[in-house]
Amino acid sequence: MAVYTEIDDEQLEALLAQYDIGQLMSYKGIAEGVENSNFMLVTDRGSYFLTLYERRVDPADLPFFLGLMQHLAAHGLPCPTPIQGRDGEALREVAGRPCAIISFLNGVSQKRPSAKHCHGVGAALAKLHMAGQDFKGRRPNALSLPGWKSLIEACGDRASKVRAGLENEIAREWDSLSAAWPPAPDFGAATPLPAGVIHADLFPDNVLFLGDEVSGLIDFYFACNDYFAYDIAVMLNAWCFEADGAFNVTKGRAFVAGYESVRKLTDGEVFSLPLFCRGAALRFLLTRLYDWLNQVPGALVRPKDPLEYWQKLNFHRQVLGPSAYGIER
Amino acid sequence: MAVYTEIDDEQLEALLAQYDIGQLMSYKGIAEGVENSNFMLVTDRGSYFLTLYERRVDPADLPFFLGLMQHLAAHGLPCPTPIQGRDGEALREVAGRPCAIISFLNGVSQKRPSAKHCHGVGAALAKLHMAGQDFKGRRPNALSLPGWKSLIEACGDRASKVRAGLENEIAREWDSLSAAWPPAPDFGAATPLPAGVIHADLFPDNVLFLGDEVSGLIDFYFACNDYFAYDIAVMLNAWCFEADGAFNVTKGRAFVAGYESVRKLTDGEVFSLPLFCRGAALRFLLTRLYDWLNQVPGALVRPKDPLEYWQKLNFHRQVLGPSAYGIER
Repeated sequence: MAVYTEIDDEQLEALLAQYDIGQLMSYKGIAEGVENSNFMLVTDRGSYFLTLYERRVDPADLPFFLGLMQHLAAHGLPCPTPIQGRDGEALREVAGRPCAIISFLNGVSQKRPSAKHCHGVGAALAKLHMAGQDFKGRRPNALSLPGWKSLIEACGDRASKVRAGLENEIAREWDSLSAAWPPAPDFGAATPLPAGVIHADLFPDNVLFLGDEVSGLIDFYFACNDYFAYDIAVMLNAWCFEADGAFNVTKGRAFVAGYESVRKLTDGEVFSLPLFCRGAALRFLLTRLYDWLNQVPGALVRPKDPLEYWQKLNFHRQVLGPSAYGIER
Repeated sequence: MAVYTEIDDEQLEALLAQYDIGQLMSYKGIAEGVENSNFMLVTDRGSYFLTLYERRVDPADLPFFLGLMQHLAAHGLPCPTPIQGRDGEALREVAGRPCAIISFLNGVSQKRPSAKHCHGVGAALAKLHMAGQDFKGRRPNALSLPGWKSLIEACGDRASKVRAGLENEIAREWDSLSAAWPPAPDFGAATPLPAGVIHADLFPDNVLFLGDEVSGLIDFYFACNDYFAYDIAVMLNAWCFEADGAFNVTKGRAFVAGYESVRKLTDGEVFSLPLFCRGAALRFLLTRLYDWLNQVPGALVRPKDPLEYWQKLNFHRQVLGPSAYGIER
């Protein structure tokens, strides 16, 4: 939660002159977004978000992200639409950073989602997977097995400062997962499981609701091509554990029922969930661990506890089948 | 710039149920406000600010601040209006913090104000001084001579870590000022110079413009009773220096002309400006110095450079009369 880059009035004016979105009435830096700087713009036509992409986002990926949002919005998904300037371009630069203006979505994220919210977001994820099927962009998942390996190496033996023995435990977990993990989907060829565009980070922070209805899916900056079941696994981790570390089977069941109200899971997907859940838990354990070990003095973001995901990972390790998540087959 | 206190959905819902401001559509933490946590609320009726008062604000002062905003808004000043709940109260509590919902004002603050902006804000300050005349609340200025003394003692010899010799220089400056400073205004008695409600912190951050017109005066959490000329001195410091440290006489002249388009300064006020400007520079030097020396590891706010105000103080020390600020008498 931060604004990393300040924009001065002249820079903002020059930027807005390239758009046909009306007269600026107000702009405020928003205290959210771990990766980027976000400003809310209010003009006499409506509300918008201005996002400045900071160093963690590879500029080469931006056409994929913005193109995907455009594609999904055009398919009726409630996701932010990049606004094109007078020249037809959505991606430009301000204050030395790539930036885009995107539509503002109403809604409030749920810090403690209910089973009903889980059902709704399950359906929304399935719609996203379906709507992405004819999107032409390609982006491999940078945070799959090889990416995890790089993070493990970057953390090294400092991991064990966070928890005794963690370095070895993580290394063994990566070995187990890499032996069982399906190859990254290749879109020329048949894939062992259904794959396509995934959000890859659809945490409660990134879903807006009005009442119990999903009104917005946001923050597509980890979206990529991978297995749909992996996206589901990310969300079982993020939505269905209670604060005390227990997995809530009712929420798991509601989430999958919501998903299957739109797209039926194959048996292969259902039975691969324990594996994908372990992988997803390792992914968030590793990125949080890396951020924990590499805190910048004076940084504006407080790192999240990596051990929350260590605990989740251990839950998934003892799971024998999908019924542990409330899914019957 | 920060959100210090997070509010969860249930807390926010319970709070909003006490108001008649419509259905919540969106809320976002705002990356501004050094002292408090601020959230922008959008409902189906309009936009509002929710402010949570953090430890630096004395809860006993809140009725003064909120009452003043209400009073000034009722007198036509473009300042935020505290919204009363169904029970008629504007001040209540959420997440263990005193809080208030205030009206949202359109406009954009100017990081590099022009002489025209200085003229406009001068007029706005005079209107504030006039409109405050029949406000009944009383609050002494906690950041005048005795408050500065406390800050000097709290910084002690660590001041000289920031600049060699600073501790002694500051002590001597306080002695000089205290010998010349008029007694704090007593509202039962006649005052040596015109006094009343002052904003005391009307920096460019705290003034919104639409085009060249002032559309909002915000952040009344240093407001108090003191000399009007001191409020003018705060703003000569904050609005009329260039980034290179030079005083811009054109801006000073424009600011005072704007002020005098609403309320004529007395000769006493004009000739006391060099003294008040020194005092105001010392006040911001001291609070910045204190914050600089007391940085909390992991804090969300980057402290401002105290030496900017050391440089300004030295400018005022060599000023011989009001003409140095562009004011002719």
